[in-house]
Amino acid sequence: MSDPTKPKMSASKAEILDAAAEVFMTLGAEAASIDDVARHLGATKGRIYHHFPSKGALLAEVCLRAADFVLQKVPPVVQATALPADNLRNMILTHIPEVLRTLPYHKVIIQSYVGVQQKSTTAHERELFAQIQLERKAYESLFRQVLQAGMDDGSFRAQDVSVALQSLLLLINAPVFWYRPRDNEPEAFVTDLSVQLADMAVASLQ
Amino acid sequence: MSDPTKPKMSASKAEILDAAAEVFMTLGAEAASIDDVARHLGATKGRIYHHFPSKGALLAEVCLRAADFVLQKVPPVVQATALPADNLRNMILTHIPEVLRTLPYHKVIIQSYVGVQQKSTTAHERELFAQIQLERKAYESLFRQVLQAGMDDGSFRAQDVSVALQSLLLLINAPVFWYRPRDNEPEAFVTDLSVQLADMAVASLQ
Repeated sequence: MSDPTKPKMSASKAEILDAAAEVFMTLGAEAASIDDVARHLGATKGRIYHHFPSKGALLAEVCLRAADFVLQKVPPVVQATALPADNLRNMILTHIPEVLRTLPYHKVIIQSYVGVQQKSTTAHERELFAQIQLERKAYESLFRQVLQAGMDDGSFRAQDVSVALQSLLLLINAPVFWYRPRDNEPEAFVTDLSVQLADMAVASLQ
Repeated sequence: MSDPTKPKMSASKAEILDAAAEVFMTLGAEAASIDDVARHLGATKGRIYHHFPSKGALLAEVCLRAADFVLQKVPPVVQATALPADNLRNMILTHIPEVLRTLPYHKVIIQSYVGVQQKSTTAHERELFAQIQLERKAYESLFRQVLQAGMDDGSFRAQDVSVALQSLLLLINAPVFWYRPRDNEPEAFVTDLSVQLADMAVASLQ
């Protein structure tokens, strides 16, 4: 979650993660190498290895930062006293612009959704992947709570909450699959898109 | 589409495609080799090369068959005189069980959704991939038509039809991401799941 005790990431580390996210998105995390990331960054491999002991660790930290981005922005918009539909709408209106602002990170995350077996990894990488799972669960649970609250008060249709949750998460991440920023994009494009998907998501539950 | 002039696939070819879909799903299409498929099949590489000139061609034919499965089942349920919401519901109630029946093929398809650049391919592979694009467009256009019909008659909310279409397609393919057949699965599981997603999809548009 947005942890105020978490030390702020160095600009150098953030710059490497930005480059890695771009390269993993374009070439695929499986095929891309530390060399590819260094080349994209115009830096030596040594500079990357100074911060990240292996490609697996670099990939894990890209995924972790993807989760961090939304976990810093979305939980604060949930209000204990708001109606479930209003909370859900505000969560989605915050989630989508944040995901599109940090698109390469989320393109890398969806590569991991396709369920290909992970290669065996180091203890450090396994620890990072366990942390990713925790953050992903924390984020999902935020949505699960609002779905459950809506079913409990009757504003959402009674249904299997896990199926609804997974479907909802794919629906609000749909633009990660197809969205490409364009030079001539209308200023309101992302806002309009977010409103349309928030409308669809809330309506889908009612 | 369900083309009666299309010659029926030989059992041997279908068996190789089934094995390839399993192997590509598990190892990732990028990492898997013809050797892996031959081993899974308990056959020689020669038997595979007899039907498929390259791994790229084998992968393309897996994707093509994934598209064929739904294109054979779904178009016949659309009725020119039915309400758009009823057509959409019937399409989804047909789509989901068919996709889950042929799950490994669709797991391979979603690997290609993550947008990793394709390696350069042979002319034959490029031809197959062009055919996949055509079939995918034909299938999407079936859904686009029913969305447009619903917006035209006012039964669906007016909205950007392309955004709605992409979101709807992800929603109805959500189970491809998380579904795993289980030995103790209740008999009605897939039916119940299909009904829940059809409800969500139709409601999301209203």
